[in-house]
Amino acid sequence: MKLTILGCYAATPRSFTNPTSQVLEIRNELFLIDCGEGTQVELRRNKVKFSKIKHVFISHLHGDHFFGLVGLIATFRLLNRKKELHVYGPKGIKEAITLQLKLSNSWTNYPLYFHVLEEKMPERIYEDDKVTVDTIPLKHRIYANGFLFREKPGDRKLNIHAAQKYKIDVVYYKKIKAGKDMVLDDGTVIPNAELTFDPDPPKSYAFCSDTVYKPDNIPQLKGVTALYHEATFIEKHADLAQPTGHSTAKQAGKIALEAEVKNLILGHYSTRYPDLDLFGDEAKEIFDNVLLADDGKVFEF
Amino acid sequence: MKLTILGCYAATPRSFTNPTSQVLEIRNELFLIDCGEGTQVELRRNKVKFSKIKHVFISHLHGDHFFGLVGLIATFRLLNRKKELHVYGPKGIKEAITLQLKLSNSWTNYPLYFHVLEEKMPERIYEDDKVTVDTIPLKHRIYANGFLFREKPGDRKLNIHAAQKYKIDVVYYKKIKAGKDMVLDDGTVIPNAELTFDPDPPKSYAFCSDTVYKPDNIPQLKGVTALYHEATFIEKHADLAQPTGHSTAKQAGKIALEAEVKNLILGHYSTRYPDLDLFGDEAKEIFDNVLLADDGKVFEF
Repeated sequence: MKLTILGCYAATPRSFTNPTSQVLEIRNELFLIDCGEGTQVELRRNKVKFSKIKHVFISHLHGDHFFGLVGLIATFRLLNRKKELHVYGPKGIKEAITLQLKLSNSWTNYPLYFHVLEEKMPERIYEDDKVTVDTIPLKHRIYANGFLFREKPGDRKLNIHAAQKYKIDVVYYKKIKAGKDMVLDDGTVIPNAELTFDPDPPKSYAFCSDTVYKPDNIPQLKGVTALYHEATFIEKHADLAQPTGHSTAKQAGKIALEAEVKNLILGHYSTRYPDLDLFGDEAKEIFDNVLLADDGKVFEF
Repeated sequence: MKLTILGCYAATPRSFTNPTSQVLEIRNELFLIDCGEGTQVELRRNKVKFSKIKHVFISHLHGDHFFGLVGLIATFRLLNRKKELHVYGPKGIKEAITLQLKLSNSWTNYPLYFHVLEEKMPERIYEDDKVTVDTIPLKHRIYANGFLFREKPGDRKLNIHAAQKYKIDVVYYKKIKAGKDMVLDDGTVIPNAELTFDPDPPKSYAFCSDTVYKPDNIPQLKGVTALYHEATFIEKHADLAQPTGHSTAKQAGKIALEAEVKNLILGHYSTRYPDLDLFGDEAKEIFDNVLLADDGKVFEF
């Protein structure tokens, strides 16, 4: 899993910081999460190949998570995209995008699908042979979802020395990695366990922004490899967090601790603070493995 | 008049070029013309004071002239703007903006007015004591207008030596500059012509983008101080200009020549060309005073 942060600051885009957008790569598949204004330019700056993006997940319809989507969709058209694009987001997203495309008299020349999210409980919104994506219900000023990406268990790993010892032809490797035993020409059965190692444990990534401190999500987040949790404020401004529908760095740390995640990534920083370490230091008082998102930063798990 | 180019490239925003937006300053008033994605960041980069923008003119509803508007409007709200904002643009602009504000449950806390343009003939859409703004009907793939900004004649200029010679108190200067004669305490009448010089001739700026070559606009453009005319292509690609609703640099030069403008500023360049001089050189074959717009460039007239 490779996570590229395109933007991770709250509210308005500025000369050197961007609103929320990130790209998650799982086994060579790209998932775009949120799409604030300027996302298409940040994708270019970070050398993300546009044509590899097939799925876009929008947490909620505040501008700093969403205003870049229509431009990205229009640019895909200008680049003569042919591949399908799937957009997952709250009710209204389809109307907002299609109205603007209609006004510009430029409908897409590629298939564009909207998957409208309205549920208040977690639901599976995407699944293929490598990945599942579930919503994580958030609590914000408007309807919002986080997203939980889980790798499916991968193929078993070939024990190449064992395979060579039994002189097994490479044409059988795929079956062996899929867990099958091997029958040699003389009828001998080699059990799969002798030919393979366990696959890497599947990884998982949870994106939670924007939300108040919401401990009832903890069971769903249990043990994830990486949790991106918004930390718009530090505790000094805890009085602002609840009414604006946001969390503090300390609250993000508490979620990470109680959900026993492997890593906590902080982001969605209010631009009132001069130094990101204010967030990091506060969360580290609660939880050990705290990472700080920043625009252009890449995390690999 | 001071014109700041925020963006002047066609189609999609890129890492180092921006779609159309520019700020025209006339006697300390700011007018924003078009608002492609990323305009608010370019306003910051060019140190344009947000609160001074009260009027936004949108030529047409293609994304590269319009997708930055909703973000700018939302940012004004976050900055606690109180002043009115007036938006002038084609039918549909109000619906596109208000739908997105509604979905984000964040209506503006300042008065926002939409002035919907539907006329096919030039019309006066703005006037105050310093400036008039008229539409310039353009021909593009969708309904589009250019905008003609004309300064009103300014005050006459005080001849300070004459004023001092007659020992005229400064409290009378304003009246004199407004054209009044001066009556001295002994009843002597000093004619205004003796106390003032003619004001600077009023300047004018015409913005024409996006449009095909449209010579019937020439009478309206006659003698303007500066004409910004789109030049998406060079003549080599003239076959692309007409069907896409655009002009070549040569065609922009022809309009400038026939309208006898003082200066021609080229812009809205297709990003297919490696060098802006290709546009400049072509237009200069037709017209002498050709200037090349570029992002961040400032023109003063």
